[in-house]
Amino acid sequence: MDEQFAATVMARAEMLGAISEEDGRLTRRSLTPALRRANEAVAGWMRAAHMTVYEDSVGNLIGTYPANRSAAKSFVIGSHLDTVRDAGKYDGPLGVLVGLAAVERLAAAGRRLPFAVEVVAFCDEEGLRFGTSFLGSRTLAGNVDPATLALTDEAGVSVAEAIRAFGGDPDLIAQDARRSDELLGYLEVHIEQGPRLQERNLPVGIVTAITGITRLQLGITGMAGHAGTVPMALRRDALAGAAELVLAIEAIARRSDGLVATVGQITVMPGASNVIPGTAMISLDLRHQDDSVRRQAVNEVMQQAKMIAAERNLDLTLQPIAEHAAVPMAEGMRAKLAAAIGDSGYELVSLPSGAGHDAAVLAEITPAAMLFVRCKDGISHNPAEAVTAADVAAAIAVVSRFLDKLATP
Amino acid sequence: MDEQFAATVMARAEMLGAISEEDGRLTRRSLTPALRRANEAVAGWMRAAHMTVYEDSVGNLIGTYPANRSAAKSFVIGSHLDTVRDAGKYDGPLGVLVGLAAVERLAAAGRRLPFAVEVVAFCDEEGLRFGTSFLGSRTLAGNVDPATLALTDEAGVSVAEAIRAFGGDPDLIAQDARRSDELLGYLEVHIEQGPRLQERNLPVGIVTAITGITRLQLGITGMAGHAGTVPMALRRDALAGAAELVLAIEAIARRSDGLVATVGQITVMPGASNVIPGTAMISLDLRHQDDSVRRQAVNEVMQQAKMIAAERNLDLTLQPIAEHAAVPMAEGMRAKLAAAIGDSGYELVSLPSGAGHDAAVLAEITPAAMLFVRCKDGISHNPAEAVTAADVAAAIAVVSRFLDKLATP
Repeated sequence: MDEQFAATVMARAEMLGAISEEDGRLTRRSLTPALRRANEAVAGWMRAAHMTVYEDSVGNLIGTYPANRSAAKSFVIGSHLDTVRDAGKYDGPLGVLVGLAAVERLAAAGRRLPFAVEVVAFCDEEGLRFGTSFLGSRTLAGNVDPATLALTDEAGVSVAEAIRAFGGDPDLIAQDARRSDELLGYLEVHIEQGPRLQERNLPVGIVTAITGITRLQLGITGMAGHAGTVPMALRRDALAGAAELVLAIEAIARRSDGLVATVGQITVMPGASNVIPGTAMISLDLRHQDDSVRRQAVNEVMQQAKMIAAERNLDLTLQPIAEHAAVPMAEGMRAKLAAAIGDSGYELVSLPSGAGHDAAVLAEITPAAMLFVRCKDGISHNPAEAVTAADVAAAIAVVSRFLDKLATP
Repeated sequence: MDEQFAATVMARAEMLGAISEEDGRLTRRSLTPALRRANEAVAGWMRAAHMTVYEDSVGNLIGTYPANRSAAKSFVIGSHLDTVRDAGKYDGPLGVLVGLAAVERLAAAGRRLPFAVEVVAFCDEEGLRFGTSFLGSRTLAGNVDPATLALTDEAGVSVAEAIRAFGGDPDLIAQDARRSDELLGYLEVHIEQGPRLQERNLPVGIVTAITGITRLQLGITGMAGHAGTVPMALRRDALAGAAELVLAIEAIARRSDGLVATVGQITVMPGASNVIPGTAMISLDLRHQDDSVRRQAVNEVMQQAKMIAAERNLDLTLQPIAEHAAVPMAEGMRAKLAAAIGDSGYELVSLPSGAGHDAAVLAEITPAAMLFVRCKDGISHNPAEAVTAADVAAAIAVVSRFLDKLATP
């Protein structure tokens, strides 16, 4: 039976994947006409599953499958319908479609649960259009920074204007904040975006935590000079120092299980092939599910940077860009997910999420959990993103069993 | 006596340093109105030194101090009056002014030599305006690539048009090629652009050779990926590979005396702080006065690059950009310069030139030599370029003694 629901999910992912702002590739930014069409398609499927549908003040699409009794709480299954540029078909939509499939399974059996099931399609998770992210889930969490509304896209359109053009009302955002006492919890199904489930040959896994992140910019200053006339021994080459630091960062991350550290940007000045670099700037993105491990690693990076700078007679600057603490997923929800996975006959694997998700925001107001689905070669944010129908069927089965366990405490 | 001539050189360098295309900094590109004014100033000083003056078909300014007999050959002392952007006052002009001072010293003494002394101010050495270089000296060497004339500056003006606007005639370039049998040799006085004379506490030094150069672009390709989700052990990080290579290049250059290797440019793609670099491109500029040492070093770099790529599962591409063989300075000229330095009471130091100079072009048609003058902290191509009047006096003394030795074989 789950195979049929999975086939529907796969077909719908294809349909949503064709709803794009751009010809030939999938780009569906927040609050655009393309997102409008995606919301309309999903709303139609929700209504067909006997859900009541509404769009909130910022453009989140919310379908509610009613409880079997009045005054019941809600359990929320959510993910997002906005995408990155040149996106894959599953990052975001898969979570909405699997939640919808779980509801359809209930509806097909004529079953209701002692709580309402809400499927939420968030309007803005990736942050491509406005350079911010999580506007959708922050609205539910009652945690939208008013300054966000003034941010503008490339065309100069503000978030507030885009919300209005989409049919929402930025003045009513506060009314859409959810009270903790009306929620049972939150579940997000998402492709893993990493290769670990594939390595373990498992369809699904439980997220332990959304990793904490430190983002820095490191500046290294030496002395620019003529590539032909300054002897090696007298150089203060900023790029050579930066290269040592890049390798030191890699070595630090390799030594600690679960730690990832990335230098994704590097620029040197003056940047001519015949001039010794006088300055180099590198970015650092460092993540771990344990905040103390992350902070320790950042300290090690800084110690190494200082040693390298001292040995090479370079100057060092440090600019903090962002720091977010890890968000552990709720123990109770994880235990029920684990039981549902066991009942479904799969080995249990728990793993952190290196990427941010709406679940980290919802965790502020309700017990939150995430189920990862195996994706091919760990590829995401790429048209090559792929999941199998069999794995989607496994996810639907696990989510259905999970809801059953929630219903029978 | 040399102190007075040196004081004049210092004052003239200040005057020429104020002749710029830009307010507040020295930028004097090839064939511009600023170069016209510089040529006119120098032509006036040449005439005052009893030289006959003409400008050739491309805008080289040539002053001739006649020989003491007819049908004599010429000895050429040259350098350039064009500059880089935001230049110092000495790179180029110093060589013209010291040559002129040596002639003034002869004129003041009422002396002529058994050969004419020509002081040549080349119109285009740095190549800032048209992206080519050595147009001036190539004209004398009869070695101008006709394609050069079609190159354009930022405003779309071609070399040929600029020559005409300057008062020259690109159709007559071939007529200005000099015959080897009418030349005795060539001497170029230039700031060292490096710190070695300062380290040795010597005012001048003899150039052994203009170093050969290999310029390459190296491309490294791995796999882009999400900074949060791809474990360290599974990464194919192009920047980490490039960083290893940058350090390997530095280590290779440090091992070999006189070898300099520079990575002046690095770019990574996609270049986002939260994405593992999928590709990295680096430039390599590698120089040595011995071509076999240079070629061996390039081979070592390639071997190291292949090892790094193999260990990290990266792909490697190599694009040759340019290769120039070293140009040794003429033995006979060097011996006379050495004798002149010894007679002047200075310790003899010989050193290669890591930068290119007009002397490398003139060496194609006549025995060429170069005399380096100590510059402060090795700084060049920078407003902080500095020489002392005492060192300039030493250079004038050495050039004068050198001319005397040429006159008495």
